[in-house]
Amino acid sequence: MHTRILNTLGLAAVTVALSATIVRAADALPSWQDGAAKNTIVEFVAKVTKEGGPDFVPPAERIATFDNDGTLWAEQPMYFQFLFALDRVKVLAPQHPEWKDKEPFASLLKGDLKSALAGGEHALLEILATTHSGMTSEEFDTVVKDWLATARHPTTGRPYTEMAYQPMLELLTYLRASGFKTFIVSGGGLEFMRAFAEQVYGIPPEQVIGSTGKQKFELREGTPVLVKQPAVDFVDDKGGKPIGIQRVIGRRPIAAFGNSDGDLQMLQWTAAGLGPRFCLYVHHTDAKREWAYDRQSSIGRLDKGLDEAKAHGWTVVSIKNDWKHVFAFEMK
Amino acid sequence: MHTRILNTLGLAAVTVALSATIVRAADALPSWQDGAAKNTIVEFVAKVTKEGGPDFVPPAERIATFDNDGTLWAEQPMYFQFLFALDRVKVLAPQHPEWKDKEPFASLLKGDLKSALAGGEHALLEILATTHSGMTSEEFDTVVKDWLATARHPTTGRPYTEMAYQPMLELLTYLRASGFKTFIVSGGGLEFMRAFAEQVYGIPPEQVIGSTGKQKFELREGTPVLVKQPAVDFVDDKGGKPIGIQRVIGRRPIAAFGNSDGDLQMLQWTAAGLGPRFCLYVHHTDAKREWAYDRQSSIGRLDKGLDEAKAHGWTVVSIKNDWKHVFAFEMK
Repeated sequence: MHTRILNTLGLAAVTVALSATIVRAADALPSWQDGAAKNTIVEFVAKVTKEGGPDFVPPAERIATFDNDGTLWAEQPMYFQFLFALDRVKVLAPQHPEWKDKEPFASLLKGDLKSALAGGEHALLEILATTHSGMTSEEFDTVVKDWLATARHPTTGRPYTEMAYQPMLELLTYLRASGFKTFIVSGGGLEFMRAFAEQVYGIPPEQVIGSTGKQKFELREGTPVLVKQPAVDFVDDKGGKPIGIQRVIGRRPIAAFGNSDGDLQMLQWTAAGLGPRFCLYVHHTDAKREWAYDRQSSIGRLDKGLDEAKAHGWTVVSIKNDWKHVFAFEMK
Repeated sequence: MHTRILNTLGLAAVTVALSATIVRAADALPSWQDGAAKNTIVEFVAKVTKEGGPDFVPPAERIATFDNDGTLWAEQPMYFQFLFALDRVKVLAPQHPEWKDKEPFASLLKGDLKSALAGGEHALLEILATTHSGMTSEEFDTVVKDWLATARHPTTGRPYTEMAYQPMLELLTYLRASGFKTFIVSGGGLEFMRAFAEQVYGIPPEQVIGSTGKQKFELREGTPVLVKQPAVDFVDDKGGKPIGIQRVIGRRPIAAFGNSDGDLQMLQWTAAGLGPRFCLYVHHTDAKREWAYDRQSSIGRLDKGLDEAKAHGWTVVSIKNDWKHVFAFEMK
């Protein structure tokens, strides 16, 4: 009987291998310009999937990790999760009359973001903690999904989920068809990202790694719930990214994709493994179709990472030059 | 082209469905006595895998979580990870001459475990922290694997990896062949369990959830490493289990397996979901082939859980009555 099961599983493996060949044969990355960036991706995938080749990597070890903000979807004029938090403050304000006299909420409610954020990181954390706690994980999931269904990006007027980068969506699909397991590894909130990652990116909840707040298990009239607490548990940024990867995946990625200095440690950790490795930075160079920013930006700063990418020969994607389309809505 | 890929994937899905049927048709659980416990398992699996049936659960949601100590392998006369830590103290002693006068190490090195543990939880944590830190995750993995290759269980004289329960190994295989994704959710150390979970249980590192110590990302002469710190980060026990499940999996299990009150919250969390659910306690009732303990035991106490299992109609497996074999080495 074991032999029969093994044969059956063997057949499934052959089927998956075949579908990978089909994808490679056609153009799996139509929104990418033909050129060096695209070639480095396709060559890497061909190399690690070539059975019997010197660089072959078994499917279980084909781990690819992606930053989210600025890598899979846009992050300007502000991180979308922060825009969610600002909207949330307005929704919650009627239940908090005391906010009228309490910063950063008082300024926020007057529409004065600059004064609200004058309190620096403390003000920011207070806004995030207040809007991301005091409810169960399931309630929060509903709140985020409702917001995504109705909120619109301030400059494009599009739903936030349409601000995903079309070339990166193609890349995710291409890698998965080539036997890769794709993970998000982002400084963004874990449960915020899970609310759309499966629908937008095809990435299931167990393949999302993010920052977390503390949680508390409670029985409410006999029903168990997980309640989000107003305290930071883990920040999945910079050196936190390899730690989050080790904690959740327990294998070192063979490919990593980011866009800022916050991703540098993830790329270093990936590059330092044995065997073939692939590291890629998305460089925001397109002020017309998207935004142009790097070394001086307060959001998504790419400074040290740009130097390291050059020093180590990592792939740097210029959005302006390497992507035919940025967003799917341009193509309609 | 999309259609061709979809067809190919469809074929693979059919193949997996077929192999599940094959497993159901034969006896996938040969070490289980025919009877109520085995029947509840087989009926649950048949129900959730029956396409078009009222209780069908799509494969992506077929999450099954297993406690480790006392559920997948034995935990007497002491948690194996603690026995590892005691061996480790002896190995490290030459580098720590100061331990001769410092508790709990002084008593441990004299072979006086009782005096060493007189310091209670503090002594225990100090032994664990000392033996589980000060090295990289990769170094720790090697240390555990070396220990597992040479250490022997104090009463059976078997390698610890042979102390896995044969009926539970069959159950893991059966569930996976039926489209389930099997996870370990244990109070044991994450990186300790990963060192053998894939080889012994067929559970890959990304499906192990456990207690963790803090880690630090460092560049050592340009090479990134993760260094284990002597500080507790997360305790994956009791209410921590649903929190660990939410953090790593982000879906509620439909089946959960444990053996102690430390698993109760995981079973409650599982049982409280919508749709078909399965909760099972392994009850240690076999003083001859294994150990008999429950309400009064300091290790693996099963007291409140036993009452809740009865109240909610969860499956309680009596090792003495429901398992034909406990360990594979009995069968040789």
